[in-house]
Amino acid sequence: MKNINVLFNPASIAVVGASPDVWRIGYNILQSIVEGCFQGQIYLVNGKYKQIMGLPCYSGLAELPVVPELVVLAVNQYVTVEQIELCARLGVKGVICSAGGFKEMGQEGQLLEKRLITVAEDAGIALVGPNTLGLINTAASLYATFWPMSLNRGSVSVISQSGGVGLSLLTTMQDEGVGVSKWCGVGNRGVLEYADYLNYFAEDPETKVIGIFIEGTDKGREFIEAAAAVACRKPVVIFKAGRGEAAAQAARTHTGALAGSYRLYQDIFAQHRLLTVDSIEELVDILKALSVVGQGAGGDSIGAIKGVGLITITGGPAIVATDILETAGCKLPNLTAATLRRVEEAIGPNPPVILRNPLDISALGFMASIYGQCALALAADPEVDALLAIDCHHRSWSLPTSELIKVQAECRKPLVVCYIGESQAVAKERHRLHEAGIPLYHSIAAAAKGLVALKFYGGRE
Amino acid sequence: MKNINVLFNPASIAVVGASPDVWRIGYNILQSIVEGCFQGQIYLVNGKYKQIMGLPCYSGLAELPVVPELVVLAVNQYVTVEQIELCARLGVKGVICSAGGFKEMGQEGQLLEKRLITVAEDAGIALVGPNTLGLINTAASLYATFWPMSLNRGSVSVISQSGGVGLSLLTTMQDEGVGVSKWCGVGNRGVLEYADYLNYFAEDPETKVIGIFIEGTDKGREFIEAAAAVACRKPVVIFKAGRGEAAAQAARTHTGALAGSYRLYQDIFAQHRLLTVDSIEELVDILKALSVVGQGAGGDSIGAIKGVGLITITGGPAIVATDILETAGCKLPNLTAATLRRVEEAIGPNPPVILRNPLDISALGFMASIYGQCALALAADPEVDALLAIDCHHRSWSLPTSELIKVQAECRKPLVVCYIGESQAVAKERHRLHEAGIPLYHSIAAAAKGLVALKFYGGRE
Repeated sequence: MKNINVLFNPASIAVVGASPDVWRIGYNILQSIVEGCFQGQIYLVNGKYKQIMGLPCYSGLAELPVVPELVVLAVNQYVTVEQIELCARLGVKGVICSAGGFKEMGQEGQLLEKRLITVAEDAGIALVGPNTLGLINTAASLYATFWPMSLNRGSVSVISQSGGVGLSLLTTMQDEGVGVSKWCGVGNRGVLEYADYLNYFAEDPETKVIGIFIEGTDKGREFIEAAAAVACRKPVVIFKAGRGEAAAQAARTHTGALAGSYRLYQDIFAQHRLLTVDSIEELVDILKALSVVGQGAGGDSIGAIKGVGLITITGGPAIVATDILETAGCKLPNLTAATLRRVEEAIGPNPPVILRNPLDISALGFMASIYGQCALALAADPEVDALLAIDCHHRSWSLPTSELIKVQAECRKPLVVCYIGESQAVAKERHRLHEAGIPLYHSIAAAAKGLVALKFYGGRE
Repeated sequence: MKNINVLFNPASIAVVGASPDVWRIGYNILQSIVEGCFQGQIYLVNGKYKQIMGLPCYSGLAELPVVPELVVLAVNQYVTVEQIELCARLGVKGVICSAGGFKEMGQEGQLLEKRLITVAEDAGIALVGPNTLGLINTAASLYATFWPMSLNRGSVSVISQSGGVGLSLLTTMQDEGVGVSKWCGVGNRGVLEYADYLNYFAEDPETKVIGIFIEGTDKGREFIEAAAAVACRKPVVIFKAGRGEAAAQAARTHTGALAGSYRLYQDIFAQHRLLTVDSIEELVDILKALSVVGQGAGGDSIGAIKGVGLITITGGPAIVATDILETAGCKLPNLTAATLRRVEEAIGPNPPVILRNPLDISALGFMASIYGQCALALAADPEVDALLAIDCHHRSWSLPTSELIKVQAECRKPLVVCYIGESQAVAKERHRLHEAGIPLYHSIAAAAKGLVALKFYGGRE
C-alpha cells in the first residue's frame, strides 16, 4: 500500500501559498485547517508576509524548522511543479496539489502534469490531485480543503472525483445526519488512483462504509477490480456520472477523465456485484442505512434479508415503499397466525383494518405504545428479516422513537424508520435512533432504498 | 362543474364528532381549523359536551342556528351514513367524510359506501372521501384535516389519493419553500373524482400549477382525459404509485382503488403529453420550478426552451446536471463568439479554463460580481433559452443572489439556481430568489429536473 496514511494523519502540515486574502485558496485552506482545530503543527509558507492569522510565515519550505509530513500547495500550476521538486529534495511524504491548469487544459497542462507525476513518483510522494479540493479526516480534526466546514464524525469515507459533487455529498450527509470519517477529492489522479484510496479505506478501522463519485478514469479495470475486492469486506456504493456525450466531454475538460460508456460501466458494476446509485441524494440515503445499522449496542452485522415487514399508520406511503421494495426483489411475506394474534392483542378484536403485510394499522397506531407493540409483533415474525416502520409527525402526539429502540434491542433485526414530516421536526428524533443503530428518513423512497441496500449487503459476512 | 367551491371556501363549518380528546380525529380537526385561523363561523356538534376549547357545542346538526356550508364528519362509518342523511335533509352543500371502513374493507363497507354515495348524489352534496384526511385552502386559512399544519401560501394545488403521501408532499413542499394554494385528500372518491378536482383547479385563479398523487382508479380514462385537457392550460404533474403486485394489492385495501398496469398508465400519460415523475421528492422539485418561474415582477409565461446554458464554479456538478438535461433532450448549444468575448471581459484574457457550454469558470467565479457578469453573458446568448446556474455556499464568500436577480430582470429567460450547501444555509437565499421568479435548489439533480419540466411546459401558451 502506498503511504496514504500520512495524508490523513500527518503530524505536521505546511501550507505553501498561505495568504491573508480571503479570495485566495491559500487563505481558505489555512482557515479550514485552523478552524477545524487540527492538533498537529501548522507551518505557513509565503515570502511576502511575516505572519498571517497571528501565525509566523516562512519564506520557503526549506526554511521550516522541520520537514512537514504533509504539504498543501496553494499556488498556481507552474509554482506547483517547482515546489514538488523541493518537496522531493526535502523528503516530504505527502502533498496536496490544489491548482488546476494541468491535464484538463490541453497539451501544455499535460506536460506540466507529467513532470509533476514523475517527480512525485521518483520520490515516493503520496500526491493528491492536482486540481483537487483536498481531503478531510474528521477523527484527526483535519480539514485540508479550501471550503471550511465542520462535519459530524462517523464511519463513512468518501472518494470523489469532483470537489463540487464531493461538497454536495458532504452537505447532504450533514443534512441527513450521516457521519463522515474521511473524504478525499481525487482530482486529476496524477499519482494516487481510486484503487489506492479504496485499498486504504478497506484497511482503515475507522471506515465502515465507502461512497464513491466517479466521472471516469482510464484505469477503469483497476478501479472496478479494487472496488469489487473491497466490497467483499466493506460496503462500497458508487455513483457514476458522465453518461451522455456532452457530459462525457465536460468530464474530459474537468479532471481529464475518460468517461467511458455508461452502459458498459453499469454492466461491469453489476457483474462484480457492486452497488450503484443514480444520484448524490440516493448515495447519501444508502450510506446512511449501511453506516447506521449495526452501530448500536449490539453492533450486529447485517444478516441475510429475504422477507421485509412493513408497518404504517397510513396506506399510501406503504404503496410507494412497496413499489421500490418489490422492484428490488424484496419480498413482503405473509404474516404467521401467531403474529396476527399479537397484533390483534395490541389493537383489539375486529379492527377496522385488514391485518396483512404491509400492515396499515391506521388510526389505531396513532398512540406510540400501540404502534410499538405492533412493530414488535411484526419484527418477531420468523418470515420477517428486516422491518420498515413508517409513521407521521403530528403536532399533538409523540412519535414511537423509544418503542422502536426497544423493538430493535429485542429483535436484533435491521430496522429502518421513515417519519413523514418537515425535516427539522424529524431531525429531532434522529440522534437517539441513529445511536441505537436505526437509520431515520423523512423521505419514503429514501427509507425503502436504504432497506434495499441492506438487503444487497446483508449476509455477506 | 360540481359545487366544489363550497368545500374550499365555505362561510361556515360544522365539525360533527368534535371532541376534547387529543387522540380523537374530532379533536384534531377542530384544533387544525381553529389554529389555522379560519375566519368563518365554526360550529361544534357532540351531544356529550356543552363546550370544547371554549366554543359552544351543539347536540346535533339540526340544532345549529344556521345550516353550515361545510360539514366535517369526524365519526365512524356507521354514524357517517346516518349524518349524511341529515345533511341531505338540511340542505348542506359540502361534506368531508373522514372515517374509513368503507369500500376498502370488503362487502359490508361497500354497501355502506353505496348508501353514502346515493344519498349525497341525490341531494347534490359535494362529498370528499370517505376515508380522507380532508382538505386545505391556504388563501381562506382553511385547514380541514386532522393533521394540524401551517403552510406557506402559494400557487400549487395538490390532489392526493393518500393522506399520508399528501402529508409527505406538504412537508416536503414546506422544506423546499414551495407555496400551497389548495390541497385535497380524495380518499375513496365516493362522489368526487380526480377529474372533478382537476376541473375545479383548472378554473381556480389562485391555482397556477397542479400536482397529483394517484394510486389507481376505476375511472382511469376519465382521469387521464381531464388531466390532459387541464394540462393544455396549466401544468399538471403526476406521480402514479401501485406499480407491482403487492403494491397494487395494498392500494386496493387502502382506498379501494384498482391500480391498473403501471406500464399501461405510463404509455397513456406519454400519449397525452402528461408530465409524470417517479417520487414525491421529484414531484415537489418540479412543482417548485413550475410555480416559481414567471412569478416575478415581469410575470412572463414560460417560452419554448431549446437551448440551455449552464454556468458553474465546479465541474462535477455540471456533469451530473448535464446527464439529466441530455437524457431529457435539452441541448447545451455552443456559445457565440460575442458571448465568449463578454465572458473573457469578465474574467480576463487567457483564463485557465476552457470557455464553452457548460461554462465552468472555476475559481474565477468565486466573486459574486464576476459570477454575475458571466451568467448575464450566457443568458444573453441568442442560442440560450434558459439558464442553469450552479454555485456553492462558502463560509467566507457571498452567493451571487443579487446578481442573478439582475440577470433575470434583464434577460427575461427562465433561470434555475442550484446552491450546493447545507439546506439551512441555502434556504436563507431562497425567499429573494423565489420572489424574483427564480427557483432555488440545493440538489443538483433536482435543479436539472426542474429545468427539464420548464422545457416540457415551455412554449405551450
